[in-house]
Amino acid sequence: MAAIAAADRADHGYDGDAWSARLDDAFSALFETPVQALWIASGTAANSIALACLCPAYGGVIAHEEAHIVVDECGAPGFFTHGATLMPLPGVGAKLTPDAVRDRLKAIRPDVHQVPARAISITNATEYGLVYTPQEVAALGDVAKAHGLGLHMDGARFANAVAHLGCAPADVTWRAGVDALTFGCVKNGGMIGEALLFFGPQARDRAAEARRWRKRSGHLFSKGRYLAAQLLAMIEDDLWLRNANAANAAAQILAKEAGNRLMHPVEANELFVRLTAEEAATLRAQGFGFHDWGHGAARLVTNWSQDEATVAPLAAALARL
Amino acid sequence: MAAIAAADRADHGYDGDAWSARLDDAFSALFETPVQALWIASGTAANSIALACLCPAYGGVIAHEEAHIVVDECGAPGFFTHGATLMPLPGVGAKLTPDAVRDRLKAIRPDVHQVPARAISITNATEYGLVYTPQEVAALGDVAKAHGLGLHMDGARFANAVAHLGCAPADVTWRAGVDALTFGCVKNGGMIGEALLFFGPQARDRAAEARRWRKRSGHLFSKGRYLAAQLLAMIEDDLWLRNANAANAAAQILAKEAGNRLMHPVEANELFVRLTAEEAATLRAQGFGFHDWGHGAARLVTNWSQDEATVAPLAAALARL
Amino acid sequence: MAAIAAADRADHGYDGDAWSARLDDAFSALFETPVQALWIASGTAANSIALACLCPAYGGVIAHEEAHIVVDECGAPGFFTHGATLMPLPGVGAKLTPDAVRDRLKAIRPDVHQVPARAISITNATEYGLVYTPQEVAALGDVAKAHGLGLHMDGARFANAVAHLGCAPADVTWRAGVDALTFGCVKNGGMIGEALLFFGPQARDRAAEARRWRKRSGHLFSKGRYLAAQLLAMIEDDLWLRNANAANAAAQILAKEAGNRLMHPVEANELFVRLTAEEAATLRAQGFGFHDWGHGAARLVTNWSQDEATVAPLAAALARL
Amino acid sequence: MAAIAAADRADHGYDGDAWSARLDDAFSALFETPVQALWIASGTAANSIALACLCPAYGGVIAHEEAHIVVDECGAPGFFTHGATLMPLPGVGAKLTPDAVRDRLKAIRPDVHQVPARAISITNATEYGLVYTPQEVAALGDVAKAHGLGLHMDGARFANAVAHLGCAPADVTWRAGVDALTFGCVKNGGMIGEALLFFGPQARDRAAEARRWRKRSGHLFSKGRYLAAQLLAMIEDDLWLRNANAANAAAQILAKEAGNRLMHPVEANELFVRLTAEEAATLRAQGFGFHDWGHGAARLVTNWSQDEATVAPLAAALARL
Repeated sequence: MAAIAAADRADHGYDGDAWSARLDDAFSALFETPVQALWIASGTAANSIALACLCPAYGGVIAHEEAHIVVDECGAPGFFTHGATLMPLPGVGAKLTPDAVRDRLKAIRPDVHQVPARAISITNATEYGLVYTPQEVAALGDVAKAHGLGLHMDGARFANAVAHLGCAPADVTWRAGVDALTFGCVKNGGMIGEALLFFGPQARDRAAEARRWRKRSGHLFSKGRYLAAQLLAMIEDDLWLRNANAANAAAQILAKEAGNRLMHPVEANELFVRLTAEEAATLRAQGFGFHDWGHGAARLVTNWSQDEATVAPLAAALARL
Repeated sequence: MAAIAAADRADHGYDGDAWSARLDDAFSALFETPVQALWIASGTAANSIALACLCPAYGGVIAHEEAHIVVDECGAPGFFTHGATLMPLPGVGAKLTPDAVRDRLKAIRPDVHQVPARAISITNATEYGLVYTPQEVAALGDVAKAHGLGLHMDGARFANAVAHLGCAPADVTWRAGVDALTFGCVKNGGMIGEALLFFGPQARDRAAEARRWRKRSGHLFSKGRYLAAQLLAMIEDDLWLRNANAANAAAQILAKEAGNRLMHPVEANELFVRLTAEEAATLRAQGFGFHDWGHGAARLVTNWSQDEATVAPLAAALARL
Repeated sequence: MAAIAAADRADHGYDGDAWSARLDDAFSALFETPVQALWIASGTAANSIALACLCPAYGGVIAHEEAHIVVDECGAPGFFTHGATLMPLPGVGAKLTPDAVRDRLKAIRPDVHQVPARAISITNATEYGLVYTPQEVAALGDVAKAHGLGLHMDGARFANAVAHLGCAPADVTWRAGVDALTFGCVKNGGMIGEALLFFGPQARDRAAEARRWRKRSGHLFSKGRYLAAQLLAMIEDDLWLRNANAANAAAQILAKEAGNRLMHPVEANELFVRLTAEEAATLRAQGFGFHDWGHGAARLVTNWSQDEATVAPLAAALARL
Repeated sequence: MAAIAAADRADHGYDGDAWSARLDDAFSALFETPVQALWIASGTAANSIALACLCPAYGGVIAHEEAHIVVDECGAPGFFTHGATLMPLPGVGAKLTPDAVRDRLKAIRPDVHQVPARAISITNATEYGLVYTPQEVAALGDVAKAHGLGLHMDGARFANAVAHLGCAPADVTWRAGVDALTFGCVKNGGMIGEALLFFGPQARDRAAEARRWRKRSGHLFSKGRYLAAQLLAMIEDDLWLRNANAANAAAQILAKEAGNRLMHPVEANELFVRLTAEEAATLRAQGFGFHDWGHGAARLVTNWSQDEATVAPLAAALARL
């Protein structure tokens, strides 16, 4: 909020302002390598623009069958890529494995009748709150490189993943073969705006193309400084990591009480908890909000603003069940 | 060939010629209902244009996971529909079942985040040579109607299906709820050109739109009479059924010899046969051509020009194995 | 800013919040008719989504050759409509005339080879700061209705147009045949977010489709309440008109001094002024910012925050030239 | 016809047959340079696929405002390029001039708000039957190269142009900077099928991409040998030039009689002739067919099958007017 208020004065329009101009440097410092960084209003747009830069319309994107880009973006990747094909794969905890990817690639005949895979997209932390380690990402990065595929990471919860890993952001991205990263901000306390980052030798060309897509899709806002200011406020003094650490810590407190109700290990800020309909109703009656997750389960998400005190009531309620 | 030669004289261009003008009436007679009929050069284009008329870009098309539109058209449906989502389902013999479709529909949340299904596409005969009966199609037609979905039939081997069923073409199409049919011609002896047919009260509007897509995709040939003439020659004296009957009969002869090597019942003109690599090599050494079908299997296709005499050598070779 | 700060508390995500829920009613009251209203982050996106709802991919959109959608949106309408054709027309002051539109329509053959016009898009106030009167819009609305075309108004400066006209917003929109309006907010003091409004019997269907496009293009932000709150703050106590009146009044003060340097009458908040390179340099040396407009001219834009005092220095500088 | 009949026997499907395999070599010989050649069913598709290989969706294609791709293809280039922008220019006889192209390029700001030109498309012979000389093409080729644009030639009447020029096909194409050529066959006596040719160092990559588009747009026919056989029959013994010479000669005979009714010089096989409504009716009453060309004019097209004897009646009728 303070950052936004500070940006509330005239400057050059679109991304010609002082805040936007600092993004490349700020993210390059954070990632210890030259980075091309664009603010983009939503994760859906950032993911889709990344894929449009990595995959032609006649190509395919390998992703987990429960990935956000597959399930919850109303086909946005198909819109931005002009009809590229999502190639969903199963996998425990919404993680892709190198073997599954290799098998999928092997099944594609190299003729013009079949869609060739051109990119892999993974989500870190995953849709089930699991975190890919640098080693796991690197294993997928090797497959990608061996087959000439681009590697995209949907980092809507990237901060939570890095907070969990305790590694350098570089370790789990470009050092592990990631070409493009959606660096989440909104789920981590931001108002509007994520960052789309490109790494490596093709970063400049891809970012130039991404700027075209950003404009062409109506995402180049005339007062982009408000978005850039948020991103800078997040990363320039490690606010993004502090927020994520807080959310992760809150999740751990709840996880302890949830015990063997947990359907997945808790590594980031999401808990998937077995709850009967009655139990869910009991919790809701006490004022707790969460999403049902199919039958007999619920998804609990903690956030940056929570600490031991604020989650204590829910922890107690879980314990009482 | 004779039909093409007969069409080899000047007439109005595109679809303004005398042959094209007769298509609606000829197909209406064959299907016992007013039909809108367009010649379209390839099955890929006919299928994709049909889907573009049934499904918006933000919609989804339910199809079998081994359907030609899913596997072998390089994403053509995504191109013509501007990025609609294929929703592949498993099913024995490449057939969709009403239950599988209903389950898939139930899993889609009715919000803007998820792609809404808008059409179902089935292949008759299927990619494994099985034939949907009128009752089976009608059961899917009921699901489609109940959920406001369009129903498309890829009839690349429609003639073989009807020859097997011995029913009226109407019984397995519009009477069973089919809105659009790709009426195959090339696999049944034609040179270039299939027919795209629309049935029912929206036929006229959809055909008008299909004519736009045909032009816009470069499929409105200036000498379309050559395509129309082939289609008329096929249907005006039941050549299409005679050809299909011949191909089916030839397949039955082979099926008898293939015995329990068969992986699927033989209903149309395709046989999927278990063959070791040595057996396949043996057959090929004798001059027989066929596709490998993964490991340890082969796909044999008979055609309209074959009869007992011409398939006898292969039948004998199969018996010898 | 206050509105945004007020929205800075948790609520349902996307457009499920209390602010978004009030948009339809608030705009319906302002326009004296049932209105479907969506917040959309940028004018480019709002214009393009409007056109995607009015024009199929194989259709055309008649617009002025200097319209923003033609010149300055990197082909965004082509992206959202999947390749619809812009049909640019000349016209004094960036205004379309009914005669020019009729002539263009007459030149289109009604066959599948030519792109059929399906929509008209006008900008009010125009790119040269001129204002279409209700009568002028109605004349275009009549042409649109007679030919079955949708009518879209790009109202990036709609507030300035209404402030100039002194009419009801309804008079210059739906009463004059407008089907969809981009209601500008950012150029009138907002931070991020315009409104896309649909009028008339098809409003509900078009808005439903627009919601799909908004999601699919990555414009359905998870914290949409910040946009909705801005729009409500603008219209619920006539702030939008007060801002526009201020900007228009400031422009009039400058217009008086610009005298016969003016290239167009000043009706809204833009002045197009003949300036030699030396004169432009002189003004810039005094700290005034503006866009060059080709050779020997400049574009000056006043805004909501200006009054007699704040523009006095520039007025004086113009007088001194 | 003979070529088609000769192709009427089984071979590998799609473009795996013996005829298709010879295309590259045959066209390479004709053009005295390594050429990548694809058969494509229609000129609309060949033009559009060429442009899709030369221009990204966010780019623009400079073309004459009366070019076939602008006027008569129902927006097909927009479909295949996913919404690239056609940039129409005026020009005498439907010819582009280097100056006009340079002026257009100069008017484009190099920012993301404006669509960058990425290709030039010219038609030879033009829509008014005029022929670009090698020098004229080379002048445009120089502009293209200087600005990093691809150069496409729509050669629906390429044979007529070359017949008129008497030059090597190479002189007016790749030696003059042309990257992609639609080599017309149908207007020159073929049944279905044109050739799309790529020249130069990027030919291989562009052709690979074009093969994807051909499949994805439903233009990879399963019996492609019929198209390849026609193309080979056309070029392997100079039939294409003999046909074009015949058509051009017939046009000259008519041109002599048309005298100062001619609106454009007659260089290929089209005549644009001033005719009153009565004169047109008189000719039609005598059995002659032609297109009206706006008010008071007609377009006469001669073809490969005509000679002095067959055009004599029309020549006489023109003389009598």
